[in-house]
Amino acid sequence: MNLIERTEKKRIAACVETVRKKAPLVHCITNFVTVNDCANIILAAGGSPTMSRHPEEAAEITAGCSSLVLNMGTVSDLDAMLGAGAEANRLGHPVILDPVGAGASALRRRILAQLTTQIHPDLIRGNASEIRFLYDGSGKETGSVDASPEDGITWENAAGWGSLAAELAERLGCIISVSGQIDVLSDGKKTYLFPGGCPE
Amino acid sequence: MNLIERTEKKRIAACVETVRKKAPLVHCITNFVTVNDCANIILAAGGSPTMSRHPEEAAEITAGCSSLVLNMGTVSDLDAMLGAGAEANRLGHPVILDPVGAGASALRRRILAQLTTQIHPDLIRGNASEIRFLYDGSGKETGSVDASPEDGITWENAAGWGSLAAELAERLGCIISVSGQIDVLSDGKKTYLFPGGCPE
Amino acid sequence: MNLIERTEKKRIAACVETVRKKAPLVHCITNFVTVNDCANIILAAGGSPTMSRHPEEAAEITAGCSSLVLNMGTVSDLDAMLGAGAEANRLGHPVILDPVGAGASALRRRILAQLTTQIHPDLIRGNASEIRFLYDGSGKETGSVDASPEDGITWENAAGWGSLAAELAERLGCIISVSGQIDVLSDGKKTYLFPGGCPE
Repeated sequence: MNLIERTEKKRIAACVETVRKKAPLVHCITNFVTVNDCANIILAAGGSPTMSRHPEEAAEITAGCSSLVLNMGTVSDLDAMLGAGAEANRLGHPVILDPVGAGASALRRRILAQLTTQIHPDLIRGNASEIRFLYDGSGKETGSVDASPEDGITWENAAGWGSLAAELAERLGCIISVSGQIDVLSDGKKTYLFPGGCPE
Repeated sequence: MNLIERTEKKRIAACVETVRKKAPLVHCITNFVTVNDCANIILAAGGSPTMSRHPEEAAEITAGCSSLVLNMGTVSDLDAMLGAGAEANRLGHPVILDPVGAGASALRRRILAQLTTQIHPDLIRGNASEIRFLYDGSGKETGSVDASPEDGITWENAAGWGSLAAELAERLGCIISVSGQIDVLSDGKKTYLFPGGCPE
Repeated sequence: MNLIERTEKKRIAACVETVRKKAPLVHCITNFVTVNDCANIILAAGGSPTMSRHPEEAAEITAGCSSLVLNMGTVSDLDAMLGAGAEANRLGHPVILDPVGAGASALRRRILAQLTTQIHPDLIRGNASEIRFLYDGSGKETGSVDASPEDGITWENAAGWGSLAAELAERLGCIISVSGQIDVLSDGKKTYLFPGGCPE
């Protein structure tokens, strides 16, 4: 497990620069609470957003994009997510899943199971409570946007979160990102800790 | 009828402090126009928002929260509102109803009737036109976010609005809040006037 | 084809002043990404917004307004758009159509055909790629909020875009507005070019 290092920071900066140059079209199927922020953040990062969520066109729209983001924040777009996810998988586009409120209701548990078995996410990013739910189905998950206080990532427990993320990454064959005071990132082989406030 | 007084202001400040300490999880079923603002306002006030609006999970989500806000701004979420409202009533969670555009269409009149009879709101907050419609079904209601100009609350007519709010509060067994240049608040027994710009 | 001139600017300023005085109620059926911005922009311009999009009330709501804006950004509101559009046409309210992502999917092509034949827009505003698609069904349309780079409007090709807008305006019997580095506006008879940054 590594703290993010100077050389890694340079590689991240190079990635950011590449996004600016390529200006990728990003397809987001996301919740209606933060959809405007998501679109503006993609624009600010140098990409171009499209937020289409109609099941009838989701696969067609995603085919014209270069990546797909699925956010479970509001859960009415399952058909669009499954359609777009399958098409993005077929075309080899990176698929990012944000399992907002994972475990907070029977509906969300069922949808999350579908999104992690019927399609293949390349990266799953969540807060500590959401990732813990994915790991073992436990956690006092409330549907809040915040992680439970007992799931805070500190220097004392960061190694444990790193192992958990690595094991989950290996099991699901994707990258796991856990956000918190310290961010944890693992592909199952390498695991990184990002101290809070990391500008990248 | 009382102008809000210094001692009351202290009690309000104490309430605000309590919210900060308890950080309550608030379930909002609200319109898609201002949903991002609503979530951010709850966060700014020290609470934690969840905006779930799927009928299949609304009751389950609200059970894990401590209060429920129903906003009629956009009217497609009636089933979620009725399900969550019944569950919140059963658990004794405060239910707040914002009857946006009350009376503006046959659909809204029907939905408002359901939301005030099938479930029990503890507080109804609206602008003067919306509250007048609730009171007697009258009012030149347009569907605008603004009250009709003829429904402006001034020092000349504030006593009348106070009586109307008190009578409606008693009839519906809930607190009535009317927003305007002067805000009116009544539980049927006590009625308060809040001059505009009141920081609380 | 004219550059916008000083005398025209005065007429536009007078229009802006009229909006401030009349404070028109504007009915917007628009996408959930920018709906909050749209409402705030209408308020900032001196109007009053209502964003109702339920098919059951859309015609009734629009009847109480003075104009109607239809934005194809997210495409789930076709029934509400057709109902409100027909009623606005019947009452002589100006109808503005924003064909976001025109041509980006089979669904959008079908919806756009319905919105330009079953109802009559008085003004169609789009970026260069969207207007080109309306003109001849061509264009590398991607579903992005941005026009394709090859559709940029420059002083070199502005005359061509003016002719295209004029021909389309005449064919559809409405005003065509093309937004870009230079904006193009035509009613089929008169065509204006607005250099970027024009404050009106």
